[in-house]
Amino acid sequence: MNQIVKRDQLIKEWIYVAADISRTSFEQTINIEEKTNRTDLVTSIDKEIEQYFIEKIATHFPNERVLGEEGSGHQITDLKGVVWIIDPIDGTLNFVKQKNDFAIMISVYENGIGYLGYIYDVMKDELYSAVKNQGACLNEIPLKKVKDIPLREGLVAVSHRLMSSEKNDEARKIGRASSGVRMVGSAGLETARVATGRLVAYIGASLAPWDIGAGKVISEELGLIYTQLNGEKIDMLHYNKTIVATPSAHKEIIEKFKLDKEG
Amino acid sequence: MNQIVKRDQLIKEWIYVAADISRTSFEQTINIEEKTNRTDLVTSIDKEIEQYFIEKIATHFPNERVLGEEGSGHQITDLKGVVWIIDPIDGTLNFVKQKNDFAIMISVYENGIGYLGYIYDVMKDELYSAVKNQGACLNEIPLKKVKDIPLREGLVAVSHRLMSSEKNDEARKIGRASSGVRMVGSAGLETARVATGRLVAYIGASLAPWDIGAGKVISEELGLIYTQLNGEKIDMLHYNKTIVATPSAHKEIIEKFKLDKEG
Repeated sequence: MNQIVKRDQLIKEWIYVAADISRTSFEQTINIEEKTNRTDLVTSIDKEIEQYFIEKIATHFPNERVLGEEGSGHQITDLKGVVWIIDPIDGTLNFVKQKNDFAIMISVYENGIGYLGYIYDVMKDELYSAVKNQGACLNEIPLKKVKDIPLREGLVAVSHRLMSSEKNDEARKIGRASSGVRMVGSAGLETARVATGRLVAYIGASLAPWDIGAGKVISEELGLIYTQLNGEKIDMLHYNKTIVATPSAHKEIIEKFKLDKEG
Repeated sequence: MNQIVKRDQLIKEWIYVAADISRTSFEQTINIEEKTNRTDLVTSIDKEIEQYFIEKIATHFPNERVLGEEGSGHQITDLKGVVWIIDPIDGTLNFVKQKNDFAIMISVYENGIGYLGYIYDVMKDELYSAVKNQGACLNEIPLKKVKDIPLREGLVAVSHRLMSSEKNDEARKIGRASSGVRMVGSAGLETARVATGRLVAYIGASLAPWDIGAGKVISEELGLIYTQLNGEKIDMLHYNKTIVATPSAHKEIIEKFKLDKEG
């Protein structure tokens, strides 16, 4: 990928501007719509931030395509060339209900390979960033490679849908095999907690490319394994059942539990 | 209760000293022991902070008794007179595994009535405090009474034990009836999130007086209802199945679900 340093600087600038938009919105009345159901929301702020990013990318990198959660980017059916992956607000339900625990995420892929990843925890002012083969940082301070802690010794995050499943007890078995379950409600922030060693695994029920893109770049730089729940590699064009974990916890969860069968 | 202002000032001073002890420990090797099982931990830091509080209370209020999680206080079998209730580190598992999301809690009861309550989120530097009949504050800024949001419209926190129960699906039914489940792993911080309107309810599987004391004073000052899961009032001498919630969510959860039967 060309212009890595320039891209890195621009992305950080844009993220801080977007964060101001999100925080300022708490003093305003914002428009909230349901997407697929009452817990799948989109607000006027998600759309405004996505539009902001798309305009910035179009200005600086006019020949590159954008895959955005709110659909105002390009129609993406392949990963050829450079593709920007945007989640203007990850954890929109938290953004609306808690005014906290949401993230702004950007990643840049080229021919399907992630080169740059950014997760910004707006309310904590914590920017996780990574450049392929150059490690990952939290607020510009390099993060250490994670320790390879096994499932039994660590906390795990599991999506509400899997934890509450009526059909399948497997997610709860993982919880009982671990030290405990924590649930944040933002794929980005849960991945960031695995990246900083606070959790040994995060399991997502149905993550889109914009939920995955940034976290995958960051976590892989730190020695974590990010795959589908059946162990296959992530499909960056579709929804995935996902796991990001320490090598030990990843192996144990994939081998011992049958979560990939869960509907 | 006498000397409310003096007590309030002293408690805040002590909490900030205790927080320094907890943060400083991250650079040291600390001693960790299992209590009842591998997820019920106590560290040398829990004990050191409890001892610090007990000494301070003995110096300033020599005739008053202390009920502390780590057992270095008095043997308490009644609530006559003034009783200090201490949780040196609430969320010890988070303290050990995450170095984050733990709280220091103090409350002061007289003849069974809570007069002062404090929950300090050490890593966020957020001190929740309340004085009976004078409202509650976050870092000295008064908190507003919570809005009476119904279960369906809000997020809930549920203890891991109830969410993972093999015997009883009721906790998960509550989760599905809400907007979503979040799990922090600290009774104090989960109660603080109800107190600030981020959650509409927090359900605890088995809370001791030191898990409850401070949060009950704070949440009741803000219009929340804090009871056992069967609707009866909290027993401050024993373990309780608990719920703290908005009036609407409290009524719905107690009437519609049978969580108090869960083993």
